Amino acid sequence: MSVTERLLPVHAPMLQFPTQGGELLVGGEKLSLLAARVGQTPFYAYDRALLQARVAELRAVLPPTVKLHYAMKANPMPAVVGWMAGLVDGVDVASAGELAVALDAGASAAEISFAGPGKRDVELRQAVAARVLINVESFREVAVLAAAATELGLPARVAVRVNPDFELKGSGMKMGGGPKQFGVDVEQIPELLALIGRAGLAFEGFHLFAGSQNLRPESICEAQQKSYELALRLAAHAPAPVRFLNLGGGFGIPYFPGEQRLDLTTIGENLRQLAERARQDLPQASLVIELGRYLVGEAGVYVCRVIDRKISRGQVYLVADGGLHHHLSASGNFGQVVRKNYPVTIGNRLDAQEHETASVVGPLCTPLDLLADRMSLPVAQVGDLVVVFQSGAYGASASPQAFLGHPRCLEVLV
Amino acid sequence: MSVTERLLPVHAPMLQFPTQGGELLVGGEKLSLLAARVGQTPFYAYDRALLQARVAELRAVLPPTVKLHYAMKANPMPAVVGWMAGLVDGVDVASAGELAVALDAGASAAEISFAGPGKRDVELRQAVAARVLINVESFREVAVLAAAATELGLPARVAVRVNPDFELKGSGMKMGGGPKQFGVDVEQIPELLALIGRAGLAFEGFHLFAGSQNLRPESICEAQQKSYELALRLAAHAPAPVRFLNLGGGFGIPYFPGEQRLDLTTIGENLRQLAERARQDLPQASLVIELGRYLVGEAGVYVCRVIDRKISRGQVYLVADGGLHHHLSASGNFGQVVRKNYPVTIGNRLDAQEHETASVVGPLCTPLDLLADRMSLPVAQVGDLVVVFQSGAYGASASPQAFLGHPRCLEVLV
Repeated sequence: MSVTERLLPVHAPMLQFPTQGGELLVGGEKLSLLAARVGQTPFYAYDRALLQARVAELRAVLPPTVKLHYAMKANPMPAVVGWMAGLVDGVDVASAGELAVALDAGASAAEISFAGPGKRDVELRQAVAARVLINVESFREVAVLAAAATELGLPARVAVRVNPDFELKGSGMKMGGGPKQFGVDVEQIPELLALIGRAGLAFEGFHLFAGSQNLRPESICEAQQKSYELALRLAAHAPAPVRFLNLGGGFGIPYFPGEQRLDLTTIGENLRQLAERARQDLPQASLVIELGRYLVGEAGVYVCRVIDRKISRGQVYLVADGGLHHHLSASGNFGQVVRKNYPVTIGNRLDAQEHETASVVGPLCTPLDLLADRMSLPVAQVGDLVVVFQSGAYGASASPQAFLGHPRCLEVLV
Repeated sequence: MSVTERLLPVHAPMLQFPTQGGELLVGGEKLSLLAARVGQTPFYAYDRALLQARVAELRAVLPPTVKLHYAMKANPMPAVVGWMAGLVDGVDVASAGELAVALDAGASAAEISFAGPGKRDVELRQAVAARVLINVESFREVAVLAAAATELGLPARVAVRVNPDFELKGSGMKMGGGPKQFGVDVEQIPELLALIGRAGLAFEGFHLFAGSQNLRPESICEAQQKSYELALRLAAHAPAPVRFLNLGGGFGIPYFPGEQRLDLTTIGENLRQLAERARQDLPQASLVIELGRYLVGEAGVYVCRVIDRKISRGQVYLVADGGLHHHLSASGNFGQVVRKNYPVTIGNRLDAQEHETASVVGPLCTPLDLLADRMSLPVAQVGDLVVVFQSGAYGASASPQAFLGHPRCLEVLV
C-alpha cells in the first residue's frame, strides 16, 4: 500500500447488508429480484430487519427507563412509520401532516409529541384534538392552545421547548445556543411557564434539542448532561411535575470518507447515570431520547439503473435513471458546504474483478446532478444497478421529485 | 451616507412590480387581494405582462431571424408553458414528462427540442412519435432512435449536442468544456455524425450550451462566437445541411447583493453579426437562443405569511408558513456554496416608516429553513405577507415539497 493510499480517507464499511452471488441482499432479497418486484427503478428500499436490529442495539445500551422515540421527519413513509411505531416507545412529528401519518400508523397519541418553530393555528387545534403532547415554541402558541382546549373541551398537553444557552459541539446542524427560531430562550422560560400555568394548559415537561448528525460521543454526553441540569433548574418554575424530559438526539451516522460509526457505550453509561439522578430529582419523569436519522438512515438504500455509459475526455460517466430529484442530499445539495460522495456501489457486481474510476450522474440537465464523483467502482454496464448506501433518512421526502418532469421514485419496505 | 453603507453591496432594485397603497401589485392585483383569491398561503405568482414584456425586450435587441426558445425546466407550470408558447418560437424540454406538458400547452412539435444526458429508451421513442427534435447526447441514443424510427415509420429528427472544448466564463454553472456528461465531446463528433448518417436519422443541426446564470455580456458573446465557429467546422462533417443551430442561453438575472441586470446591447449586436455570417455560411440554418431563467425568473414572486414573531437573544425572527420545502434555492440550499439572501420584502408594508433587521424562517425543524438572514425589512406582524422576488424560475418544481409533511404551495399565473 502506498503512502497516498494510506492517507486517503475511506468510507466506513457498509456491511449491514449481506451479499450473495455478487449481489446485495436487501430484506433478504437479491437486489435484481427486488428491482423486478418493485417493477421500476429508481426506488428506495428499507430493510425491516435492520431497523429492528438498530432499535435492539440501542435498547441494549440504554437504561430500561429511558424512552426511545422515532422522529419521523427522517423517513415518513407510512409503512416505515408503522413498523417503527411497533418498535419504539413514541413518535415525534413535525407537522399536522406527519401527525396524521403517525396516527394512521397506529402510534399511541399519549406518546406522540409535536415540535416545530412555525405551527399554524389549525395545526395546534388538530394536535389538541388528537390528544398528543405539543412542544410549545413561542408565547403566541399558549393563547392559541388555550382557546383550542376550551373550545374542544380537552386538555392541551404541553412541553416547553427550550433554546438552551449552549450548543451541541461538532454537530452537522446546530439547533440550540445563540439566537434561534427553535423553542424559547432559556432566559424567558420562567415567564413562559407562568403563562402556561395561568392559561390552564396541562404542563408535562421539557424538550431540549441541541443539534443533529453528531459523531462525537463526548459531545453528545455533554449536551445531555447540560440539558438535564438546565431542565432541573427550570423544573423549579414549572406549574406541574415534569413527566417527560426529552433530551433530544443528535446521534450521527457515517456518510463521508473518514467518518466512523458512533460508539454508544459512553452514551449509554451517561444516560444510565442521568436516569439514576432523575429517579431522585424528578421522580415522575421519563427521560426520552428522540432519534430519526440514527434509527433509519443505515437501513435504507437508493437504487437506480445505469442507462448509458459515456466516456468524455478520458472520464467514465455512468448515466443513471435516478439522481438529484430523488436524492438531493446524496447529490451534495442539501446543507453541505463542500460536496462529498456518499458510499456508492454497483449492487449487482459486488464480486467484480475489475474496478475503474467512474462518476455516476443522473438524467437532469444540470451539473448538480451527481451521485458519485470519480469513485472507484466495479466496472458497470447499461442495465446495472447503482446503490447509494446510508439512504434511509432524508431521502425521498427531502428531494425535489417534480424537478424536470422525470418519474417519481418508489419506496419499499422489505 | 457612511463609508460602510456605501461599501455594502445591495440588491438590484426590484422595480418590475408596481406598488399601490403600500402593497405590491402582481398581475395588476394588490397582493392581499391576490392572496385572498388564491385562498391560501404560501403560493407562487407569475405575472403575464412581465413575461410578455421580457420577450418583447429580447425581440427588440435580437435580430429578427434569431429564434427565441423557452427552456421550460425553469418553470414547467402548464399555464406558464402555454402562455410562453404563444410568445416564443419554440419550447425546449428536458424529459418526456416536460414534453407532454409542452404538447398539451399547444407548443408546435416542429419547434420543440428535447435535451438531456440520460434519456431513457421509452422517452426517445416518445420523442420520435411526437415528431420533435431530439438532441443526441451519446452514441447509444443513435441506435435506439433508429430502431424507434423504423418501428414507428417516422423520421427521427436529431440535432447533435456538442460538449465544446471551451466553457462559458463566469457562469453560475458550467456545462461545457473538460469532461462532462452533457453532449458528446467535440473530438468525437465527426464519428457520431457519420453514425447518424449511416443509421438514417434526420440530421437537423447542432446544440451547444456552455453554461448558465451568467451576468457578463462579454463572456456570453465570446461563448456564442466560439459556438458558432465550432458548429461551422463540424457542419463540414454533417450528413445533411444545418437547419437549427442552438447557441444555448446562459443569460443570468440578479439574485444577490452586488449583482446587476444584464445589458443586452452587446449581446444583440453580437448575434446580429453572427446571423449575418450564417446567411452566407449556413444558408438553411436558423440560429436559436434558448432561455429559461432569463425569461421567467424576474416575473415571479413567492408569497408566504408571517405566522409568528419571535425575539431570541435580541434577534427578530419572522416565522413564516412557507420556506425551504417550497423554495429550496431561496433558502440557499441548491447549488450555492455560500448562502446569500434573495431580495425579500414585506409585500403589504412597502410604505412602512419603520424598518428593522429581521430574519425570515420557515416552519421546518431545521436551521436550513431560512428565507432571509438578518435583512433590513419593514417591521412586520403576524398575518403580513413575505415576498421573495426573483422566484419565477427554479422555485416550486425545484423544491422538496413533501419534506416534513407541510401543505404544498399553489401556483397562479396572473
